[in-house]
Amino acid sequence: MNREDIMLSVSSGMPEKRWIHTLGVMSASRQLAEQYGEDGDRAELAAIIHDAAKFWPIEEQRNYIIQHELDQELLQYNKELWHAEIGAHLAWAQYGIDDQGIRDAIRYHTSGRAGMTLIEKIVWVADYIEPNRNFPGVDKARELAARSLDQCMLYGLNSTIALLIEKNRIIYPGTLAARNDLLSSQSE
Amino acid sequence: MNREDIMLSVSSGMPEKRWIHTLGVMSASRQLAEQYGEDGDRAELAAIIHDAAKFWPIEEQRNYIIQHELDQELLQYNKELWHAEIGAHLAWAQYGIDDQGIRDAIRYHTSGRAGMTLIEKIVWVADYIEPNRNFPGVDKARELAARSLDQCMLYGLNSTIALLIEKNRIIYPGTLAARNDLLSSQSE
Repeated sequence: MNREDIMLSVSSGMPEKRWIHTLGVMSASRQLAEQYGEDGDRAELAAIIHDAAKFWPIEEQRNYIIQHELDQELLQYNKELWHAEIGAHLAWAQYGIDDQGIRDAIRYHTSGRAGMTLIEKIVWVADYIEPNRNFPGVDKARELAARSLDQCMLYGLNSTIALLIEKNRIIYPGTLAARNDLLSSQSE
Repeated sequence: MNREDIMLSVSSGMPEKRWIHTLGVMSASRQLAEQYGEDGDRAELAAIIHDAAKFWPIEEQRNYIIQHELDQELLQYNKELWHAEIGAHLAWAQYGIDDQGIRDAIRYHTSGRAGMTLIEKIVWVADYIEPNRNFPGVDKARELAARSLDQCMLYGLNSTIALLIEKNRIIYPGTLAARNDLLSSQSE
């Protein structure tokens, strides 16, 4: 499927506000790709699809993960992580994207993981700081992103973990692993 | 080796202040064991040995873990975790303790783990709230311990993780697993 058809298909499956967010992630991904030396088309394509399953009813998300034998372990963790796993599968099954790097950028755009690739970091950071985002600390996050993807991710992952502690919610081990990994490579 | 000989041996390997802490963990362990239905002698024995290796030079700790083929993964994480792994081995190798439950209470007294046993929770909590402890939040921790070991552990693990985030230090995955596990069983 070509870029425009994918955009039409994805946008028809979400509220307008989320599509505006997606457009923001697309432009931020392209800009970060240019700055950090990644292919802008690849980063943008991951951005287009990253939230494709986000507005599916949660039971539909669960069933999709089970029926397509995706990572079942996720079902024990925050529901907010499920759409990323599904989006990565849709990229291949529905939109015909063979590029594993693009699919992994979709898969890890919420959780993160240890050993993230450049495109994975770009989409993660773009999702976090795209121009429509507005949360306490977003200016700091944008400053960090302009200097270092790793610094911005570390800031974002630390904030996420601290918030989940405060809210008494389960923390996905992969998110901690992403954060520990960034911290280790920073101090090397 | 009998209880008194073990106490003499352990106390000779640490500063007086830490031995006073150990005496506090012994009495708190015995008290919590009585309250929550564990064998007080077992809990106290774990308490006696729990910090036996804490004041070994750090290189000696590293070598012991390598030479005795203990959990090498720990070497990638906070040094503060190493003495617990060594203490559990000393309990058997130096003090002749066959009881795996006692050894595991020593092993997990700092990190915690998913699926902790009663004696493991008792020694963890006793170490956290023993009468000589004095940190912001210790009164709250003592109140919680009087009502629920799980609640006290969750409070302590959350505080530890939040502090390590703040200090930009690596967080041991087993500690997160312990915290997630307590949170899950609480909400069931």
